[in-house]
Amino acid sequence: MSIIVFDDTYFMRQALIEAQKAFDRDEIPIGAVVVWDNKIIGRGYNQTETLQDPTAHAEIIAITAATQNIGAKYLTNATLYVTIEPCTMCIGAAFWARIKRIVWGAPEPKVGFMQFESILSKYQKSLLHPKVEITSGILEEEARRLMQEFFNNKR
Amino acid sequence: MSIIVFDDTYFMRQALIEAQKAFDRDEIPIGAVVVWDNKIIGRGYNQTETLQDPTAHAEIIAITAATQNIGAKYLTNATLYVTIEPCTMCIGAAFWARIKRIVWGAPEPKVGFMQFESILSKYQKSLLHPKVEITSGILEEEARRLMQEFFNNKR
Repeated sequence: MSIIVFDDTYFMRQALIEAQKAFDRDEIPIGAVVVWDNKIIGRGYNQTETLQDPTAHAEIIAITAATQNIGAKYLTNATLYVTIEPCTMCIGAAFWARIKRIVWGAPEPKVGFMQFESILSKYQKSLLHPKVEITSGILEEEARRLMQEFFNNKR
Repeated sequence: MSIIVFDDTYFMRQALIEAQKAFDRDEIPIGAVVVWDNKIIGRGYNQTETLQDPTAHAEIIAITAATQNIGAKYLTNATLYVTIEPCTMCIGAAFWARIKRIVWGAPEPKVGFMQFESILSKYQKSLLHPKVEITSGILEEEARRLMQEFFNNKR
């Protein structure tokens, strides 16, 4: 008998499945899922090359999918799981969607939002919605390994 | 005989035409156009209510339209005209699209990106692409008036 536990690791594994889809399509391998009441209501993987659309990040696709799925533009009880630390565009999308919680895997020091957030917080400013909760480091190694493998293949 | 001059005012007037479309559809009236070599290659107006999509800002729609139009994800010679100062999500989209120049009309102190940029610049950080040029205040009054009329009607 096996019991499925719906925890952060479970849902991040789902985001990693999305990231693998990006990898298989020669896209930078980042994946995301949006979860509401332990149910995945939106999925996305980076498709900037396939769609030739610079806004087609995993998070944007997953957020838009989630809002279309529930027929409402606010995801006030949802958690966004994403394999890599989001960029400012995607954090802005999570802000507008009023996402309750954001969970990511590996840090992204070069284009992630935290390099800005850490400065802004000293000034009582934030790129995040005031009520949002954040968690990082879930399946960090798996997320990082997929990215490293992708960029190693490119060299 | 009349001569059409393709200057910032001309293209911002086109962005205002987009903003009016949003107004007429009971959307927060913000409009945008993307211009390359004096040609409009993308248009957009805020459609967050119509599409129930929190990412459907005028700029995102105009940028995506432009990339689809030219079949490439980089808008390296393009100017984005938008009636109101962009938010961080839209500035992030412009960053990823490598837009060359961003021109806006009226400031947006509450959710615009400049409140963050002004702090970050002290730390040699920026939400903008390093090479981007920015211009503000083009047809500012017209852009602001449309917003005020919209919110006055809501009261």
